[in-house]
Amino acid sequence: MLTVGIFLFDEVEVLDFAGPFEVLSTAGRVAQRSGAEVPFRVLLIGQTQTPVRARGGLLVTPHHAFFHHPHLDVVLIPGGDVSVVQNDAEVVRWTKAVSATAMLTVSVCTGAFVLGAAGLLAGRRVTTHWEDVADLRQAFPEAQVEADQRFIDEGTLVTSAGISAGIDMSLHLVRRFTTEDLAQRTARQMDYAWQDAPAP
Amino acid sequence: MLTVGIFLFDEVEVLDFAGPFEVLSTAGRVAQRSGAEVPFRVLLIGQTQTPVRARGGLLVTPHHAFFHHPHLDVVLIPGGDVSVVQNDAEVVRWTKAVSATAMLTVSVCTGAFVLGAAGLLAGRRVTTHWEDVADLRQAFPEAQVEADQRFIDEGTLVTSAGISAGIDMSLHLVRRFTTEDLAQRTARQMDYAWQDAPAP
Repeated sequence: MLTVGIFLFDEVEVLDFAGPFEVLSTAGRVAQRSGAEVPFRVLLIGQTQTPVRARGGLLVTPHHAFFHHPHLDVVLIPGGDVSVVQNDAEVVRWTKAVSATAMLTVSVCTGAFVLGAAGLLAGRRVTTHWEDVADLRQAFPEAQVEADQRFIDEGTLVTSAGISAGIDMSLHLVRRFTTEDLAQRTARQMDYAWQDAPAP
Repeated sequence: MLTVGIFLFDEVEVLDFAGPFEVLSTAGRVAQRSGAEVPFRVLLIGQTQTPVRARGGLLVTPHHAFFHHPHLDVVLIPGGDVSVVQNDAEVVRWTKAVSATAMLTVSVCTGAFVLGAAGLLAGRRVTTHWEDVADLRQAFPEAQVEADQRFIDEGTLVTSAGISAGIDMSLHLVRRFTTEDLAQRTARQMDYAWQDAPAP
């Protein structure tokens, strides 16, 4: 079972974390029904365990605080208004530290800016929300920022386009770490028309 | 501005409430940018204000408790494991009471069972998750349960298919209460391929 840690912060975009949470936890439910093992444990991680105020005012309580959580196999940074967190030294330090020991680092939407601030985009093909492609290029000229991609899997780094693209990217993670069949059954369970990325 | 109340309960499906929350709050952000008024205020309502444990273990804190919230123009019942709440007399009483004074009652996925328990489906065309169509027919034979519909708008009652269909239905609500243009811009902001329902 892989442990996936999703970073929560004030002004995080709701669907950016809730979409991946839904996909990865539903994959477990679908797997269990057919007698297979649950592939993912999904943890929400905040700077502290104080409830976070997501965009629009949704209040979510992190399961763990920075540096007080199990080892993360996958670390996922959602987007939203990242103007505070991308400039927060503790967030950058945590992102660097967990990425260094995780097998995979993932962003949704403007979460890519946090990865950039942690120095994780240099020389990599990456994407973000269509509205922020130009800004990401300007902020991190060493990254190869691509537009019009639903998500980009670079092996140890997966970045997604805006908001709902996190759902499609997460279905890709289900496929990558389990089977195509489980990913398709998860999408079907969610009644979701998976917008897959073209094969590289 | 319309006040939308979304019911939260233990074992609610994450995307069933987070999808509509995202759409309706994003519509406000998109409207504001172009100088228009924010069309929706979205409140999460629990039986109490104690944090709710959604499916997969996500902890969300309701903004208000039953009968201690502003007047609701729209009441939305998400799905998930509704086996407890559909048999809870207080939930049924609240659902009846808020529906009676709201202009619109909405369900996502298995939330339709709660509406059925509150007597709100009789004689209406309704839908639910594809896996639960047969059960909904059996439980509420006085309802006209239809399969293969993304959502069904019956004027004062809107029901949606499974999980992600709540996103499509909510974009329809944006269109219905504001404009087609704002609904399309909201979907674009969410980078979402809107699966609209065919015109009735």
